[in-house]
Amino acid sequence: MPLVRISVSNGVKQEKRRLLADAVYDAMRATIGIPEGDKFVVLTPHAAEELIADPNFMGMQRTDEFVLVHITLRRGRSTEKKQALYREIAGLFAQRAQIASDNVMIVLAENDLDDWSFGKGEAQYVLNPPAAAR
Amino acid sequence: MPLVRISVSNGVKQEKRRLLADAVYDAMRATIGIPEGDKFVVLTPHAAEELIADPNFMGMQRTDEFVLVHITLRRGRSTEKKQALYREIAGLFAQRAQIASDNVMIVLAENDLDDWSFGKGEAQYVLNPPAAAR
Amino acid sequence: MPLVRISVSNGVKQEKRRLLADAVYDAMRATIGIPEGDKFVVLTPHAAEELIADPNFMGMQRTDEFVLVHITLRRGRSTEKKQALYREIAGLFAQRAQIASDNVMIVLAENDLDDWSFGKGEAQYVLNPPAAAR
Repeated sequence: MPLVRISVSNGVKQEKRRLLADAVYDAMRATIGIPEGDKFVVLTPHAAEELIADPNFMGMQRTDEFVLVHITLRRGRSTEKKQALYREIAGLFAQRAQIASDNVMIVLAENDLDDWSFGKGEAQYVLNPPAAAR
Repeated sequence: MPLVRISVSNGVKQEKRRLLADAVYDAMRATIGIPEGDKFVVLTPHAAEELIADPNFMGMQRTDEFVLVHITLRRGRSTEKKQALYREIAGLFAQRAQIASDNVMIVLAENDLDDWSFGKGEAQYVLNPPAAAR
Repeated sequence: MPLVRISVSNGVKQEKRRLLADAVYDAMRATIGIPEGDKFVVLTPHAAEELIADPNFMGMQRTDEFVLVHITLRRGRSTEKKQALYREIAGLFAQRAQIASDNVMIVLAENDLDDWSFGKGEAQYVLNPPAAAR
């Protein structure tokens, strides 16, 4: 279910960008229990002056490789699960795409089971509720 | 009030894209009671590799005509109203733009009356609350 | 913490666009108490036919200088603070970029403290909670 919006600078090469969508999916599989195949990602490259991040807020050293990950997901993951997700995304971005963890900002937006239609005009999570989010 | 963000592949021709914004507006008019003229849509075309949707998750057959509709609206529509909205959007996309319903993903994000300013720096729904959402 | 998404028409010149991100940041500093340096903005220009706003809904006179400001921020600001924010954004847009206040639409989306990671894979607001939002 999660809908992932990734914003990157044009400064991040296209080969790197492609790795990011897979990394977020794998991190969600590993930490918040999304089902196999639940991969929906909008990846938007921006001109440098259009993706603005303070270079030092919260003690980071941000560069033009800044990546914003904005995830909409259903309500109910625990704080511990969310923390594990953040660690895993930052870890995979570093490992696979050499993105420094200072450059990885993640923002979550929660909604409810009846806020999702995956196709056919149906609300699949109403008709067939998934196990409770953990 | 709803704010509609529509993401489509470049593979969807511009003539088709233009029909989608009207279809979502008409579907919201028909099913969730938005007032006439309440039409605010951001329509973004994406390169194929930037709009990623699993081809088969939840039993769909998705193609490069996949359309993501992300709607922000005030809290309180019933599950039944949301289901009617999904059916109507998918129906109008098929009827007017020949988009298969397997290709239509819809995600809702709810907020509150004081989260909207339509202009003049005012919070119109605070100053003049609409009838309760049904 | 706020994540700001600004959508403008290509019709708004680039010099003007650049002023908008600063204006939203300054307005948030002045009205909702965000800390210095808490500036994260995605600024997206759109072709005219991709940024659709009803020209007159709610009694406005909207033109091709329409600006949509979509802000994700943590839950808890009072209605009065939000109203002050709307006034200040519209006021600064007019003063600095000559954007008529009829052209300024603002939408808020609230989330929670554990929904933010500013870098290093950590949930900074969980580890070190900020003062309660006012």
